[in-house]
Amino acid sequence: MSDTRLLEVRKGVLDGNDVVAAGLRARFAGAGTTVVNLVSSPGTGKTALLEELLRRMAQQCSVAALVGDCATDNDAVRLARSGAPVRQIVTDGLCHLEATMVASHLEGLDLGTVDVLFIENVGNLVCPSAFDLGESLRVVLLSVTEGEDKPLKYPAMFSASDLLVVTKTDISDAVGFDRPALLAAVESVHPGMPVVETSARTGAGVDDLIDLLLAHRPAPVLV
Amino acid sequence: MSDTRLLEVRKGVLDGNDVVAAGLRARFAGAGTTVVNLVSSPGTGKTALLEELLRRMAQQCSVAALVGDCATDNDAVRLARSGAPVRQIVTDGLCHLEATMVASHLEGLDLGTVDVLFIENVGNLVCPSAFDLGESLRVVLLSVTEGEDKPLKYPAMFSASDLLVVTKTDISDAVGFDRPALLAAVESVHPGMPVVETSARTGAGVDDLIDLLLAHRPAPVLV
Repeated sequence: MSDTRLLEVRKGVLDGNDVVAAGLRARFAGAGTTVVNLVSSPGTGKTALLEELLRRMAQQCSVAALVGDCATDNDAVRLARSGAPVRQIVTDGLCHLEATMVASHLEGLDLGTVDVLFIENVGNLVCPSAFDLGESLRVVLLSVTEGEDKPLKYPAMFSASDLLVVTKTDISDAVGFDRPALLAAVESVHPGMPVVETSARTGAGVDDLIDLLLAHRPAPVLV
Repeated sequence: MSDTRLLEVRKGVLDGNDVVAAGLRARFAGAGTTVVNLVSSPGTGKTALLEELLRRMAQQCSVAALVGDCATDNDAVRLARSGAPVRQIVTDGLCHLEATMVASHLEGLDLGTVDVLFIENVGNLVCPSAFDLGESLRVVLLSVTEGEDKPLKYPAMFSASDLLVVTKTDISDAVGFDRPALLAAVESVHPGMPVVETSARTGAGVDDLIDLLLAHRPAPVLV
C-alpha cells in the first residue's frame, strides 16, 4: 500500500471520530456535564490521582468515570471504591480511546445528574493526542520520574492538551526532578500552558487541581 | 470506513513491515550482529540504561545504536557521549519504529564491524509490539515507579518480548515497589520470562544484563 493511500485511510478514521466527538460534545453541553480526558504514559499515576479526585469531589458535586485499558478491569475495580459510577472500557489492544467507545459506554448513565465525567485514556503519550472524545478539557499528566524533556519529545500531546498535571511530586528529591527544566520545556511547546503540581500520596496540589477543573464547568443550559 | 476494511489496511501495513524485517534479520545474521530492540513507556529510562550499556560494553566488543523519537535528537546527543556510533530516527509523530526506518538509517554503517546494535524504540508500551524490526532480542523495560500490574494491562508487549529489564531499582523503597506482585504479573502473562533488575544510577544489575545480551550473540558466519 502506498503512503498516500495509508494517509487517506488514517484521515478517514480521524474524520469519522470527529463527527462522533462533535455529537458527544453537544450532548455533554446539553446535560451540563464537564468532561475531562486524562492522558499520559503508562504508570504516570492517572488512576491514583483519579481515585483521590473522585473521593474529594464527591463532597461537593456529582462525579463519574470511564476508564480505558488495553486489557483488565483493574482500574475500574480500584476506582469503584470511591463510590462514584465507574465503567471500564477494554480496548482489546487498541492504543487509544475513540469517541464511539465513549458513546457506547454512556448507555444507562444519566448525564443530567453528572457534573464532572472523567475519561481515563489508555496509557500512551502518542496516539490518544489525535482522537477527540468530545471532552471539555484535555489534561496531560507527567510524573517527576519520566524526564523533563518529554514535552519536547511528544509535542503533539502537550500542544493538544489544556492543562499539565505533574504527578508524584513527593519523590521529586529522590529522582532529582529538575522543575525549571520541565517548565522551560512546557513553555517552549505550549506557551502559557497552566501547570499544577500534585502528589496523590500526600494530597499536595489536589485541591488546587479540583478548583481549576470546577472553574471550567459549562454554564447551565437555559430551558 | 468499515472496521473490516480498516483491519485489512492495518494487516497490509504489518505484512509489508514483516517482509522488510525478514530481510534485515538475514542481513544482521550475515554480519554477525546481535540486534536488541528496546521497548518501554516514555520515561522508563531506556536512554539512561543504554548510555551505561554502551559505555561498559565498548570495553569488550563493538557497539552502536539507533534511537527513535517522535521529535528531537536529544537522545542521540546524549548517547554519542559514549563514543559509539549513534543515529537518531525522528518519526515525526509516528508512535513506533518500522523496519523501513531501521533499514534507511543503516546506510554507511559497516555492520561487519558491529557486534551489538541497539535500537531504542519510541516510548510507547502498545504500538511497537506489532512491528518486527529484524531484531535478535526484544527487551521490554519497566521502571519500579510504573505499577506492578503493567504486564497484565499491556499483555501484547510483555508476551512479544524476550526479556524484562526492571529499571530504577534504586528508588524501589521510595515508591513502595512490590517486587513479588510484579513477578507474579509477569509470570501470568509470559511464563518463564527472564527478568533482570537494574539501576542505571547505581550500576546495579547492568553487568548481569550485559552477560545475558552477549550470551545471545549469533554464531559467526562461516565463509
